[in-house]
Amino acid sequence: MRLVQFCHVGEEGRVRVGVEQAGGQGVIDLKAFDPTIPSTMREFLEMGQSGMDCADRALSSGQCVVPRSDIRLLSPVTRPEKVVCVGMNYRDHCLEQNAPIPKEPIIFSKFPSTITGPYDDIILPEESTEVDWEVELAFVIGRKGKHIKEEEALSYVAGFTVANDVSARDWQMKRNGKQWLLGKTFDTFCPLGPAIVTTASLKDVHNLGIRCLVNGAVVQDSNTSQLIFQTQKLVAWVSRFVTLCPGDVFLTGTPPGVGVFRNPPVFLKRGDVVECQIDEIGSITNKVV
Amino acid sequence: MRLVQFCHVGEEGRVRVGVEQAGGQGVIDLKAFDPTIPSTMREFLEMGQSGMDCADRALSSGQCVVPRSDIRLLSPVTRPEKVVCVGMNYRDHCLEQNAPIPKEPIIFSKFPSTITGPYDDIILPEESTEVDWEVELAFVIGRKGKHIKEEEALSYVAGFTVANDVSARDWQMKRNGKQWLLGKTFDTFCPLGPAIVTTASLKDVHNLGIRCLVNGAVVQDSNTSQLIFQTQKLVAWVSRFVTLCPGDVFLTGTPPGVGVFRNPPVFLKRGDVVECQIDEIGSITNKVV
Repeated sequence: MRLVQFCHVGEEGRVRVGVEQAGGQGVIDLKAFDPTIPSTMREFLEMGQSGMDCADRALSSGQCVVPRSDIRLLSPVTRPEKVVCVGMNYRDHCLEQNAPIPKEPIIFSKFPSTITGPYDDIILPEESTEVDWEVELAFVIGRKGKHIKEEEALSYVAGFTVANDVSARDWQMKRNGKQWLLGKTFDTFCPLGPAIVTTASLKDVHNLGIRCLVNGAVVQDSNTSQLIFQTQKLVAWVSRFVTLCPGDVFLTGTPPGVGVFRNPPVFLKRGDVVECQIDEIGSITNKVV
Repeated sequence: MRLVQFCHVGEEGRVRVGVEQAGGQGVIDLKAFDPTIPSTMREFLEMGQSGMDCADRALSSGQCVVPRSDIRLLSPVTRPEKVVCVGMNYRDHCLEQNAPIPKEPIIFSKFPSTITGPYDDIILPEESTEVDWEVELAFVIGRKGKHIKEEEALSYVAGFTVANDVSARDWQMKRNGKQWLLGKTFDTFCPLGPAIVTTASLKDVHNLGIRCLVNGAVVQDSNTSQLIFQTQKLVAWVSRFVTLCPGDVFLTGTPPGVGVFRNPPVFLKRGDVVECQIDEIGSITNKVV
């Protein structure tokens, strides 16, 4: 299943949870199908299996379908409690910067306010001259847990989506006492979507092509098989520190090809269009303004 | 005014917003006084001035007073979108560790899930053997803003409270690629409260005694006049990066006397009681379990 958040055109600000029909046809409005379904993905995920069952029934029913042209897709989750990010998590990305392969995941964060929609603009801040792209496999937590075992970790994941971990390299690497947060957390620095593809719908999430294109040219091209710490490991690791909640978003790290390690370095400028793709999951396209 | 969140004894989990009577007598249940008042501080702050006016009227009315013995105080704000933290922000704390005075604020974060009540337990995690105390002046954002000017910054602050920025030094300083997040964000690592003291109620928030006591012994004893970057500067600085929202919590940094810089270092152990005090604002007391 492909779960989305959307609003009807002309009803901006009124978030709805939906499920996409196969072949990218219409989107089923779950609240229209069942008025007891909440309006946000975070609350929907808090319902657990009963929410998923309802989405299943709605999809089979063929009812309450809204045509694509009548909706605007939002980020599939908004205002999560946490956006957990992983640094240096692709073997080939470590090689690119002559960095050793980490022995433990390196965890940092973005503020939830940085999340923006799958086709929304990335706002280039005046404060930075080194804004860079990072395509990433993201996943969304589906149920609450602490000290989760690796063997059970996938059952805590609602599904997977695509993220761009937009990064101001000047702030990340040279300022703020080398704490990465500020460079990672400008408003709109986390385009996310287009859908949460439920875990059972993907054959092997750790063997998918992952690419980033800037103005149509491929700049990152790798495979999620290059991940050093996979989904199960990351869920188990982070849940040693904090209680995970439905809606929490993980960004699992980026493959090689970022702008800062090019020679000479390349950064985003106004008018650029960045597309992040992961096979079987989807693609997000964001203009830099 | 002193704004709090509480629950009635026997109604755990049902959050209420209240205002404390002078002299620490009872707490006025704002929802009992006016049923249109929301149940959480975050939503209450989103009301802006009309919420504050209502709290004012409730306080004058002397109605809807609940005795202290019938309530349990919670953290005055829960589930904020952001917990923004400042490192190395006391002159005397920089001297303590022979570190240069920062020229710009150093910003990091804790996940909102780390917040706990003013008298709740701090859970010592198995994962760390170096858990330390940090008394801090905290403030809470009262209205939405981006690119806020220093001169206007105080009008974006709802009020001030007391925090303990509990820190696992092993994780903060030696692991996780030196990104501070994990060491700072274990569950219960941010006791907060007891009240949000509104900005107008404090004569000079940047000239208040600030202390931490462990098992009754004073371990930190300074004054908020030692702050390098004061409230106005921090609001302006962080709002260059992110949109601030009602309920966002700032922890402004800690004075000298933390355990890790003692010779030999001292860390918290089960059974310890940590009290953090700021003159005119209040005190929080948390047992380590």
